[in-house]
Amino acid sequence: MKRRSIRLAHMILATITMAGLPGGTGRADGVCTPSKFGAKDQVGNLNYVTPAKTLAASKLITKGKAYRLGIETNHNTPAYAPRTFNLMVVQPGQAQGVTIGPTKLTYNDDIINGWVGIGSQIDGLGHVGVDNVYYNCNKASEFAKVDGLTKLGIENVPAIATRAVVLDMAGYLGADPVKEGTAFNKAEIEGAMKKQGIKAIEKGDVVLFYTGWLKLIGKDDKRYGSVEPGVGVEGAKYLASLGVAAVGADTWAVEVLPGEKGAGAFEVHQILLATNGIYILENMNTEEMVKDKAWESFFTLGPSRITGAVQAIINPIAIK
Amino acid sequence: MKRRSIRLAHMILATITMAGLPGGTGRADGVCTPSKFGAKDQVGNLNYVTPAKTLAASKLITKGKAYRLGIETNHNTPAYAPRTFNLMVVQPGQAQGVTIGPTKLTYNDDIINGWVGIGSQIDGLGHVGVDNVYYNCNKASEFAKVDGLTKLGIENVPAIATRAVVLDMAGYLGADPVKEGTAFNKAEIEGAMKKQGIKAIEKGDVVLFYTGWLKLIGKDDKRYGSVEPGVGVEGAKYLASLGVAAVGADTWAVEVLPGEKGAGAFEVHQILLATNGIYILENMNTEEMVKDKAWESFFTLGPSRITGAVQAIINPIAIK
Amino acid sequence: MKRRSIRLAHMILATITMAGLPGGTGRADGVCTPSKFGAKDQVGNLNYVTPAKTLAASKLITKGKAYRLGIETNHNTPAYAPRTFNLMVVQPGQAQGVTIGPTKLTYNDDIINGWVGIGSQIDGLGHVGVDNVYYNCNKASEFAKVDGLTKLGIENVPAIATRAVVLDMAGYLGADPVKEGTAFNKAEIEGAMKKQGIKAIEKGDVVLFYTGWLKLIGKDDKRYGSVEPGVGVEGAKYLASLGVAAVGADTWAVEVLPGEKGAGAFEVHQILLATNGIYILENMNTEEMVKDKAWESFFTLGPSRITGAVQAIINPIAIK
Amino acid sequence: MKRRSIRLAHMILATITMAGLPGGTGRADGVCTPSKFGAKDQVGNLNYVTPAKTLAASKLITKGKAYRLGIETNHNTPAYAPRTFNLMVVQPGQAQGVTIGPTKLTYNDDIINGWVGIGSQIDGLGHVGVDNVYYNCNKASEFAKVDGLTKLGIENVPAIATRAVVLDMAGYLGADPVKEGTAFNKAEIEGAMKKQGIKAIEKGDVVLFYTGWLKLIGKDDKRYGSVEPGVGVEGAKYLASLGVAAVGADTWAVEVLPGEKGAGAFEVHQILLATNGIYILENMNTEEMVKDKAWESFFTLGPSRITGAVQAIINPIAIK
Repeated sequence: MKRRSIRLAHMILATITMAGLPGGTGRADGVCTPSKFGAKDQVGNLNYVTPAKTLAASKLITKGKAYRLGIETNHNTPAYAPRTFNLMVVQPGQAQGVTIGPTKLTYNDDIINGWVGIGSQIDGLGHVGVDNVYYNCNKASEFAKVDGLTKLGIENVPAIATRAVVLDMAGYLGADPVKEGTAFNKAEIEGAMKKQGIKAIEKGDVVLFYTGWLKLIGKDDKRYGSVEPGVGVEGAKYLASLGVAAVGADTWAVEVLPGEKGAGAFEVHQILLATNGIYILENMNTEEMVKDKAWESFFTLGPSRITGAVQAIINPIAIK
Repeated sequence: MKRRSIRLAHMILATITMAGLPGGTGRADGVCTPSKFGAKDQVGNLNYVTPAKTLAASKLITKGKAYRLGIETNHNTPAYAPRTFNLMVVQPGQAQGVTIGPTKLTYNDDIINGWVGIGSQIDGLGHVGVDNVYYNCNKASEFAKVDGLTKLGIENVPAIATRAVVLDMAGYLGADPVKEGTAFNKAEIEGAMKKQGIKAIEKGDVVLFYTGWLKLIGKDDKRYGSVEPGVGVEGAKYLASLGVAAVGADTWAVEVLPGEKGAGAFEVHQILLATNGIYILENMNTEEMVKDKAWESFFTLGPSRITGAVQAIINPIAIK
Repeated sequence: MKRRSIRLAHMILATITMAGLPGGTGRADGVCTPSKFGAKDQVGNLNYVTPAKTLAASKLITKGKAYRLGIETNHNTPAYAPRTFNLMVVQPGQAQGVTIGPTKLTYNDDIINGWVGIGSQIDGLGHVGVDNVYYNCNKASEFAKVDGLTKLGIENVPAIATRAVVLDMAGYLGADPVKEGTAFNKAEIEGAMKKQGIKAIEKGDVVLFYTGWLKLIGKDDKRYGSVEPGVGVEGAKYLASLGVAAVGADTWAVEVLPGEKGAGAFEVHQILLATNGIYILENMNTEEMVKDKAWESFFTLGPSRITGAVQAIINPIAIK
Repeated sequence: MKRRSIRLAHMILATITMAGLPGGTGRADGVCTPSKFGAKDQVGNLNYVTPAKTLAASKLITKGKAYRLGIETNHNTPAYAPRTFNLMVVQPGQAQGVTIGPTKLTYNDDIINGWVGIGSQIDGLGHVGVDNVYYNCNKASEFAKVDGLTKLGIENVPAIATRAVVLDMAGYLGADPVKEGTAFNKAEIEGAMKKQGIKAIEKGDVVLFYTGWLKLIGKDDKRYGSVEPGVGVEGAKYLASLGVAAVGADTWAVEVLPGEKGAGAFEVHQILLATNGIYILENMNTEEMVKDKAWESFFTLGPSRITGAVQAIINPIAIK
């Protein structure tokens, strides 16, 4: 069995870099956007997920059907280079089939050697910055330590229990999967909302785009991992203006690739994470929700609290 | 800063082994308990978490307050020997402070080198067996591969959204933390329920014991990691008779240590996981729930779906 | 760039297993060969490498030409499943291009996440056993701990400085590379020696077979890693009768694959390591030595002394 | 058993940084020392180890006694923060004590999760730089990739077989171990040489300082890992003027710590590696050589050829 590692991402970056004028729209170190939640804030737009918001969202549960949105993570999962993933299962103290004690205890244990950014994941606010400056004006030199972030680590993410809105872009655009390079901007977002009968995207919401892209995994990993449809620069700014807490998709980067003309490398990541404190949820499997037309649901997520981690491998639960 | 690794666990095992009569209550390979859910079942008592159960549990949300139950996992978290944990944060392609593209992209990425069983965790049904036979008569030789379990892996766990019952054993027993070696059996469980006004524990419930034990971390890691109060053998069988889906506690092993007289090594793990298909949730931080008397709540958990993993580092969300 | 991981080895094992009669030539636990060097010996035939042997071998240095025999180890190196290898280079404390102190110190550091048995390696005496019993009657249950061997670990290997004999099997057999499945037994070994003018293989020698097999790496990894020419069962016993300290080759397993009719799975490994205390040196690049007809040379090797390790990634130096 | 990780090193750096005037002796990016061996050279002073040099050095073998200079590397070995090391031993496909094939094959395999810079190690020329510029004017941004150095990687190190000179600084200074902070400069080096009857240090030599420092490991890891006697700035320049190929010691950093007044952070590393292409050999155990007065010997080393690695865990063999 071959590992389907995708190593084309650097190509994308190279292309973007050459296309753009270095420094063209970049901002100098120190010129950053202070958080609207105060100079010490590490939480970003999850501040909008208040008990009132949670309580209201819980009313969306009408059938009790729970969806797990995580895809599997393993050494075959297509991954952004040079990310790799390996799991090892061991039986400590049990070589030769030895058992322990009168009730013959035996056990398996497991070890991960892997990059966190593989499979379904949440990008924490320390993941992407602009010129080494991250969310709330935190400088890499001050918080990005080799054994863990000292600020903006994933352990700071509060309990997430809020409303999820699934936007069926495949249905709206009439293509499943949606073609790579298709940008979701204000027009597309509002168009899909209207088609689905969603009245509004509100503060603290989680917006999940469905594109059908995940079905490429195992069939065309190269295409899957090098391009994708996704959020455009204007779309990201529009979602930020609405105060969403997180933006996700059934793609590995959530944002459109190749990027729009004039866009920077992973500029949507910069807009959402660094400028606006909005989390990104990658490889969210919403296929069954789309089949069930579960457009609005109660969304819960508790990322594993690994101290100083940039990201987390996740499996959110959405309930209708 | 010193690593507080706790390596006393082997001592416990040795003590138990010597105390018991080898083979006394053990069962021969092949003598196992077939699952009540059929020969192919890999899910266990989470089968009881039906949409009806989920819907009913969701009605427990009355305030919208969401609790994150995970503690932090890092290289200082006390861990069962020889488990270790390390995280590394890197800036790929950015040596010398280089930025990428016109908008000066910079990013952090992270890598885990660590055992999964550290911090808050769910034990999957492939974690503990009796004489190399695991849940539903699965033999280690057939499914425990070094690069991942081929059955009973954590990726098979369905979406968890059900009722949680918190039992405040510290309050019931008048000691916070509860003394190590204190067993929670039928009498203690029913006593705490009565005191808290909980009428019943039902099929598909998650039962979480509060003992105050977590407050020892960082203060007395040796005591924390070598002994604990917890579920006894009779208590485990009682909970199994009620059809609970999972049993958790604010301790590293959930079960009482040192074990009760005549008990096998981690026999409660064997009873819950191997014999009854009941998941174990370790190091669940319910302190704030106890303060709020949030005895019954809506509990959600989606363990990261790492293919073939034995366990998962978790951070469940309970909502009141 | 794709990883060329070779996962055919299990197929080989399956084939062998089916072909043989289970238990046919196996030995029951406890029936083992005590070392001729005493019950406590962990060194095996390296006991034959005495100062006199080292001094004599050093006289083979006549030109001062030093050969490095190691091939490179990286994530593309074909490896026996499920072995994997990853290296990470980091710049601790230097995010954003920060330098340290008045002389602007900057530095790179590196981390290995990898199986030791990839690329050029020495198999220690704890690597392969017969029915869980290893060299000098050591039982796996007693020394094979999950965090390191407590006996037979690679840290016990003494300084190696002895005579190497290179046998050019490609030249002798007139095929470069030698065809897979070609067994090197007494006749072939003596034939090559005679052709090359090597009078004798002696106690404490390192014997290195050249087959041309390494040139398949990167060209036909599947063939490279699933089969090979190499030492046969009778050849292994013959070399053992001569008292060699180590046997190596420019192949990943040193022994012939598919195995000879009636041979067990990796039986040559069992004969050399477990029964006779002879080390195995895999993926030894002797191509340049063959070109130079450096048939006899001074061979030095100090495996990295990782406590409890089974193997070591090596790069021996042979000097002519 | 507690891990004796030494995390004081950052303190040292902080002290040095504060003592020095930032930028005082630093050099701007781009101002570097081109190699005397040409613009493409990646080998440094090992160019001086010619066949003639090797042949001459081999004549130093008069007794055939071989010394292994490596100390053990494991999770207890004191290490520069945040370096960590873990080894795992597994028995793939053998859960439940299963054996493979008719001859009942069983085997152990091992996996490293660890930083390379622990225990005995060679620092490659890509390890330390001045303001992100490394040996032969290589810029970090161009060769320091997260999955391996693309230049100056350890796989480029040629076979090392040359003369070693052991300088017994403990004997010369009358203190074993030599006190921390004691600098070895021209006077001390020549003094020790004279006392030992060593006529000259020559091009291509490996110079190994003995201080007795290793005996602190396991007894006073904090002292061992935070300070040490060692090479001073003038001494480093003097050794460079002699054309040595490598400088080693029985200490973790080879250079004096705390540094001399006015010295930069690890400035000796900068002088040897970056400016002069001289390798550094750390934690070289020469105790037995000193006992035997083996002042001049034949030194061989083949670092494991992990592609793109910065360093290697080593165990050189010196022969007298």
